[in-house]
Amino acid sequence: MGQQTGRTVFFVSDRTGISVETLGRGLLSQFEGMEFNQIALPFIDTEDKARAAVAQINAVAATGERPLVFSTQVRPELGAILKTCQGLYLDFFAAFMGALETELRQVSSHSIGLSHGLHDEQRYDTRIDAVNFALSCDDGIGIQSYAAADVIVVGVSRSGKTPTCLYLAMQYGVRAANYPLTEDDFEHQRLPAALSAHRARLVGLTITPERLQQIRQERRPNSPYAALAQCQYEARQLQTLLAREQIRSLDSTHMSIEEIAASIVHEMGLVRRR
Amino acid sequence: MGQQTGRTVFFVSDRTGISVETLGRGLLSQFEGMEFNQIALPFIDTEDKARAAVAQINAVAATGERPLVFSTQVRPELGAILKTCQGLYLDFFAAFMGALETELRQVSSHSIGLSHGLHDEQRYDTRIDAVNFALSCDDGIGIQSYAAADVIVVGVSRSGKTPTCLYLAMQYGVRAANYPLTEDDFEHQRLPAALSAHRARLVGLTITPERLQQIRQERRPNSPYAALAQCQYEARQLQTLLAREQIRSLDSTHMSIEEIAASIVHEMGLVRRR
Repeated sequence: MGQQTGRTVFFVSDRTGISVETLGRGLLSQFEGMEFNQIALPFIDTEDKARAAVAQINAVAATGERPLVFSTQVRPELGAILKTCQGLYLDFFAAFMGALETELRQVSSHSIGLSHGLHDEQRYDTRIDAVNFALSCDDGIGIQSYAAADVIVVGVSRSGKTPTCLYLAMQYGVRAANYPLTEDDFEHQRLPAALSAHRARLVGLTITPERLQQIRQERRPNSPYAALAQCQYEARQLQTLLAREQIRSLDSTHMSIEEIAASIVHEMGLVRRR
Repeated sequence: MGQQTGRTVFFVSDRTGISVETLGRGLLSQFEGMEFNQIALPFIDTEDKARAAVAQINAVAATGERPLVFSTQVRPELGAILKTCQGLYLDFFAAFMGALETELRQVSSHSIGLSHGLHDEQRYDTRIDAVNFALSCDDGIGIQSYAAADVIVVGVSRSGKTPTCLYLAMQYGVRAANYPLTEDDFEHQRLPAALSAHRARLVGLTITPERLQQIRQERRPNSPYAALAQCQYEARQLQTLLAREQIRSLDSTHMSIEEIAASIVHEMGLVRRR
């Protein structure tokens, strides 16, 4: 109780709460130096659960500062219950539903299932297929399938290629392969044969030697592989090779996986699959 | 031009646009029977890009119905430009920033980098480690690492275990292993030895035989593996085994990967890692 610092924030959703958490955190990050005690309340999809959420919010309100409550509630009867809480209630859906109903001249259906792609089997299957593709073309394997790839991510070991490809698959349904460039490729300063036929679909992930060293050090402490000189050599050689072969590249050093993936979709003009 | 049906919707963001797309689509899905022509405009982070976005929106407005524009703009000077567009401009950030500034008695910093976890290396590293964990404990391999798992997902082949574990890693930083239950386990109606020591961290993914058949049929058309009788047998045996061993379970049949993952975090009370 007494150890808890900062304002308490609730993220309430009728489904997973992933969007409301992301947007809410984005807003909170604009208040520098403030700390927030964050509590997720996903799957609030019945009146009983909504009343229990209100009780939990009010219990916090009773002990200190008014909690913040970010919400995405589709059903008005649940929104009406949540709105009675003693927190600052901010609903991303309610804020715009009225304006949309007016603009589209149609009353919204207020139905939970509709809003989150439930039963969208095609979307599910496309994403699973893309994940399987990424796994079957990870780290230089499966080059015989490269003709079916939407994009092929290249870079040095530990520059984030695998998670980027998996995220591309899961978020965008994009088929992404990845291939590690190694000293052998750098010595020849030439693309390996497996890649040269697919030049237009290649994207390079670059990274600073310092960050690369930090990541490798975590993985294999004090190995030659993690030595700064080695990381400097590989990072520099990669840059030279990408420039020489005119391969598009992204600096992944300060980006999250989501940002690297979204940048690739954007820069390469990839079409998301349904 | 003439082939395009429905209202055009723009998703504008200073960063990836993933949240604004998800929330915007959630809102639009409430308008049943309507079709929308969706255009993503991510990385609108300079005044020039904002003006180009306005021009693109206005070009659509000039040819037909007023477009809808969902936005998350942190910097007021960019928001001011975007707001001049001839679409219905709806900004998820602007809608609440004022209320938050009043409540928190602090002016927000209006800085793009802050809002999206840029430079959050610890979060990045945790997620990469969790992805590596999922890959090293996929499909029954890596059982010697199960002691380090936050959760172990069990189920029949093609019930969504691998993508679920990868999503748990990427979204929540959770270490998730997965283990396929097979006919051998069903015949004995007993957990395999590798799992029985970790009972409290097990969760079963169930699925209807019809949906399982549909997925397997895609993968290996007309194989014995995809036969309805086989899928019925496995689905029923799994249910019996999970009940007998008192393993928590989730029906994944009508859920997206995001929903399965969020449900597991919620039901198992998993702590997200930073």
